[in-house]
Amino acid sequence: MYKVEELTELVNREIDKLSFDKTPKELYEPIAYTMSQGGKRLRPILSLLACEMFGGDVQKALVPAMSLEMFHNFTLIHDDIMDKAPIRRGVETVYKKWNQNIAILSGDALFSLAYEKLLACDIEHLVDFIHLLNETAVGVCEGQQLDLNFESQKEVSIDEYIEMIRLKTAILIGACLKAGAIAANADKKHQDMIYEYGVFVGLAFQLMDDLLDVYADIEKFGKKPGGDIRENKKTYLYLKTLEVASKEDAELLRNYFSSTDIEDDIKYDSVRAIFDKYNIKALTEEKMNSYYEKALSILDQISYNHTEILRISKMIINRDH
Amino acid sequence: MYKVEELTELVNREIDKLSFDKTPKELYEPIAYTMSQGGKRLRPILSLLACEMFGGDVQKALVPAMSLEMFHNFTLIHDDIMDKAPIRRGVETVYKKWNQNIAILSGDALFSLAYEKLLACDIEHLVDFIHLLNETAVGVCEGQQLDLNFESQKEVSIDEYIEMIRLKTAILIGACLKAGAIAANADKKHQDMIYEYGVFVGLAFQLMDDLLDVYADIEKFGKKPGGDIRENKKTYLYLKTLEVASKEDAELLRNYFSSTDIEDDIKYDSVRAIFDKYNIKALTEEKMNSYYEKALSILDQISYNHTEILRISKMIINRDH
Repeated sequence: MYKVEELTELVNREIDKLSFDKTPKELYEPIAYTMSQGGKRLRPILSLLACEMFGGDVQKALVPAMSLEMFHNFTLIHDDIMDKAPIRRGVETVYKKWNQNIAILSGDALFSLAYEKLLACDIEHLVDFIHLLNETAVGVCEGQQLDLNFESQKEVSIDEYIEMIRLKTAILIGACLKAGAIAANADKKHQDMIYEYGVFVGLAFQLMDDLLDVYADIEKFGKKPGGDIRENKKTYLYLKTLEVASKEDAELLRNYFSSTDIEDDIKYDSVRAIFDKYNIKALTEEKMNSYYEKALSILDQISYNHTEILRISKMIINRDH
Repeated sequence: MYKVEELTELVNREIDKLSFDKTPKELYEPIAYTMSQGGKRLRPILSLLACEMFGGDVQKALVPAMSLEMFHNFTLIHDDIMDKAPIRRGVETVYKKWNQNIAILSGDALFSLAYEKLLACDIEHLVDFIHLLNETAVGVCEGQQLDLNFESQKEVSIDEYIEMIRLKTAILIGACLKAGAIAANADKKHQDMIYEYGVFVGLAFQLMDDLLDVYADIEKFGKKPGGDIRENKKTYLYLKTLEVASKEDAELLRNYFSSTDIEDDIKYDSVRAIFDKYNIKALTEEKMNSYYEKALSILDQISYNHTEILRISKMIINRDH
């Protein structure tokens, strides 16, 4: 059985093989730039691990794994326009390095190329893969739209927030695992189980993201924390605080998240102090662990060797950056 | 044999059946809005006509016809962001009516839905349809990128311009016809011939567009001409003038296209006067007709009844709006 580290190698080699050396270069260079940046390659690795877990040949999972990684990178290119994000993975975003129009177009092209990649799969899996990509893509758009809505929406419930991160982040984790299961010819029941497992892991993953943004060790995190606070992002930490805090503290927090004239460091310290007062770190960890437990209980019902899937899931949840 | 008018009816009924009544409404309303606007529905009608010409059942062509119409509408939503266009088909663009982020996202979702639509086709055509959509989508992105490049590119040759409109506009016409041929199980040779026919018709179609923008009868055109001149668009008329005009007139034209402080009507009249001096209307018609002749010579080699395909092609070329 391949280990996570070996599959990471395999994924990286496969990504290196992708060629975007075409014209017009203004369209393809941003694609090559984005695809070569690395990141954790978590999603394609999950496809390979799931394929292997269900007894498949990991080579068969490489096609959907690459396609879903391409799709993921397309969403990042477009998201960065919408969020006006200048930096991702420590380097300039496409939107910033080139311009907005190029980011729209190169994203669109990469999205097409993700579909084109799928055509290299075994024909008996094509309908399933295309449908999975469609369903995921539409869901991710819905999630991103909800996220945009939240910016101007006065009241966001925790349920709404969870639904947003489910769509925007978690279903893609589920889809990557399911793609591996399909490639391994796992039965429909197991495909659905590993998908659900992935969705729960994805929810925990996003809550960890929310947590790290406030509580990460700056050395390990590699960047200054507090980005979400600076941008008034309604994360789980923020919404949970509104739920449990006194009326006065809730009001205070709302004020911090609507004012624009407070110095970043002061705002971060003040908001973090409110979070701390209500033990939000522990409450978020509790929520995260509840999803992780749900994920594990699904995995327990799958009678295949899930050592490596479990290992990577733990790495996802216990990460410090 | 169905007539163009009957197939238009069929296409409109099929589009009415598409439902985008989902949430979040901020994502789906712009899609429903765009898809319901009408326009000429030229592209899906071409798919049906090609299918029928090759002896197929038009019902089989409805799936790719709808998919390609959805794809076309997706490109319009994104193009309007890039061109900052406030109006299309006489109504506000998605970008203008909602906002840019919604236009990016609803476009992305519609693009996915175009792929999802294809899954309703007969399984034996799926690979061909998906590949056709991918190839067309990537080509259209390349064409749009070339168009964006031209804005800041000092010298654009006529060959470069033709390659741009081939990618941006003509290959989709070719793809619509080819999709109909695939649905009719036409052989590969005929699929390619009707595609090439469509590309030539598409080139003529775009040159007619360039012409109408300057020379249309305002009553029939429904809007004030001169939009391309106002936006300094390097159309065929502009590029051909630079080729044939005296050094002085070429310089004058360049100046009009780089200055920003001339009143619109004065600029239009002045540029049109230069075009007229060099008989650019006739020269553009000549180029357009040369493509149309090439298209017809391909059609002549196809020994199926092409009465209706010919009729709609003539309608495209001889249109006044």
